[in-house]
Amino acid sequence: MMQLLSDESYMRFALELASSAQGQTSINPVVGCVLVKDGRMIGMGAHLRRGEAHAEVNALLMAGDEAEGSTAYVTLEPCSHYGKTPPCSKRLIEKGVKRVVIAAQDPNPLVAGTGIRLLREAGIQVDVGVLQEEATVMNEVFNKFIVTGMPWVTLKLASTLDGHIASRTGDSKWITSEASREYVHMLRHQHQGIMAGADTVLADDPQLSTRLSVPALQPVRIIVDGALRVPPSARAL
Amino acid sequence: MMQLLSDESYMRFALELASSAQGQTSINPVVGCVLVKDGRMIGMGAHLRRGEAHAEVNALLMAGDEAEGSTAYVTLEPCSHYGKTPPCSKRLIEKGVKRVVIAAQDPNPLVAGTGIRLLREAGIQVDVGVLQEEATVMNEVFNKFIVTGMPWVTLKLASTLDGHIASRTGDSKWITSEASREYVHMLRHQHQGIMAGADTVLADDPQLSTRLSVPALQPVRIIVDGALRVPPSARAL
Repeated sequence: MMQLLSDESYMRFALELASSAQGQTSINPVVGCVLVKDGRMIGMGAHLRRGEAHAEVNALLMAGDEAEGSTAYVTLEPCSHYGKTPPCSKRLIEKGVKRVVIAAQDPNPLVAGTGIRLLREAGIQVDVGVLQEEATVMNEVFNKFIVTGMPWVTLKLASTLDGHIASRTGDSKWITSEASREYVHMLRHQHQGIMAGADTVLADDPQLSTRLSVPALQPVRIIVDGALRVPPSARAL
Repeated sequence: MMQLLSDESYMRFALELASSAQGQTSINPVVGCVLVKDGRMIGMGAHLRRGEAHAEVNALLMAGDEAEGSTAYVTLEPCSHYGKTPPCSKRLIEKGVKRVVIAAQDPNPLVAGTGIRLLREAGIQVDVGVLQEEATVMNEVFNKFIVTGMPWVTLKLASTLDGHIASRTGDSKWITSEASREYVHMLRHQHQGIMAGADTVLADDPQLSTRLSVPALQPVRIIVDGALRVPPSARAL
């Protein structure tokens, strides 16, 4: 059955917009924004690349003058600081948005709530927490980094039921399936780096690249090789 | 499991963009567009209102100068004529898009294929038919209108298992459920007009309005009343 129009349905769509940019925003979070006025969507946007327009700005661009009096659904608290782009809270205020619905607060404890406060001080109705869990899980990589300064690490390990990663002969192709290999390539597309030890590179000569049916993002290749054993002919180099 | 990057996954996202505008484009079709370059989404858009920018134009607006050399995924064949806005085929050519993937051809037999031909004549690679069925079903209302000139009519009839629409006493509230009533309100949001006969208006005094948890679109109220029996006090007036 079709989804009923509601704060949640609009936020779910904003989450889809955000999700579509998963992996391509570098150390920035993925964010989606939908602008609605008088029962009609007037703008939509996502943050597509670090240093480029935030989701709110892209949605406002599409809405143009219609933005005045609209409701903005944003998956992450609008920023309040001058970074690579001017603060989105200010932009929403300037454009006359009258209500802002937010899924998740800024995960950075030092700034969480400041964007919301700015909006409220400007007389905008702000509602926080619609689909908060989905929005938080979506940015688990960013959230860990912004709070701890540490990178999110995904371990890919193919192992047999009894805990081995290769047969006695060293032959390890393939104990995984077609589906898991495709999944790994999507993970690569969504990660900034891919790391392997020298032993793995020497044994498997992996390409450490993302291979899908259409061009994808290529993570930085990192080889941990304390003794420079990997030859220049390695396919990853 | 996460969706693999592919022509289909991008088209599926473009279909979601289109679907989000269901009901608000008047006699125009709903259309979504995604622009991709080097494994990265650089623009997205939908057609939001008749007379305003088409999906391709909104996506190109978000992409800016990056559009050159990109691939465009469009749920409907880009238009080739000057209507309320300039033709999108021309715009895609001007912006240097190098490949266009289309879900469904223009349903109007008189113009189907002309947008595709324009693009191909400009040296653009055009692939047609990715998720064609989904794209066609999505615009069944528009497709019927543009081919036959007739409106799409949805009949809402609440009836008992034995074929009655009210009890012997004329009491008909409620033989439907909460879920079906909410569904009907979404249908109203997505239709341009809502029609009832004078007997229904006299018996039920319906509001003929869309009532959801957030503001929705209100269809034009049409009452078929050959003898002007409906009083000015009727709630629908």
